[in-house]
Amino acid sequence: MNALLLVAHGSRRPQSNHEVLLLTQKLKNHCSQQYPIIHGAFLELADPTIPDGIQQCIADGATTVVVLPYFLNSGSHVTQDVPAIIETAQSTYPMIEIKLAQHLGASEMMIELLISSANQAM
Amino acid sequence: MNALLLVAHGSRRPQSNHEVLLLTQKLKNHCSQQYPIIHGAFLELADPTIPDGIQQCIADGATTVVVLPYFLNSGSHVTQDVPAIIETAQSTYPMIEIKLAQHLGASEMMIELLISSANQAM
Repeated sequence: MNALLLVAHGSRRPQSNHEVLLLTQKLKNHCSQQYPIIHGAFLELADPTIPDGIQQCIADGATTVVVLPYFLNSGSHVTQDVPAIIETAQSTYPMIEIKLAQHLGASEMMIELLISSANQAM
Repeated sequence: MNALLLVAHGSRRPQSNHEVLLLTQKLKNHCSQQYPIIHGAFLELADPTIPDGIQQCIADGATTVVVLPYFLNSGSHVTQDVPAIIETAQSTYPMIEIKLAQHLGASEMMIELLISSANQAM
């Protein structure tokens, strides 16, 4: 069973963290057939943490967990911190397949999305 | 003539700012017919600033400038700082139409983009 874990940086501003969890809820509404288990998690400053999010996915019955970094830039969070957490989690749960998706900013659809937003303002 | 100004937060890490300018270049490759003028600008920590970016668009011949905030959350940067800068710029250039697009995180295409990124990792 596939799980999707949306991972954001986390903010001291509760509203920002709430927006990430709202996005997680929207994902549930749109792709629950493909990903029956969907949770959100935060790298820092907010809960649940990424290890807690992965653990929750597995507790819900996941055999594959796709971790999706909701980050714009390929800074050290994306290139080092999140991969290191995933590697540790993979060691902890060797029977579970934990896959790391590319971060949001690297999406091939980004250009299309930006043009669409610009056009809506015209 | 339409201009598109992609506005990011700006980072102390040059590579992050460079990624935004690369994205601006990609936008030029994809929608130069609709937006013959495309520039990038930063709210803080990097150049060009948003007022400089708007000025450059106008110097290039823009009559309409769409400002597109490359931000994930609707924090004070998106709700207060960028709109205040746009308002000042609109007063400075009353003959130019300066329009503020919704920020990246509010795009209706975000869900589709995230699902696509997740699927590519599967």
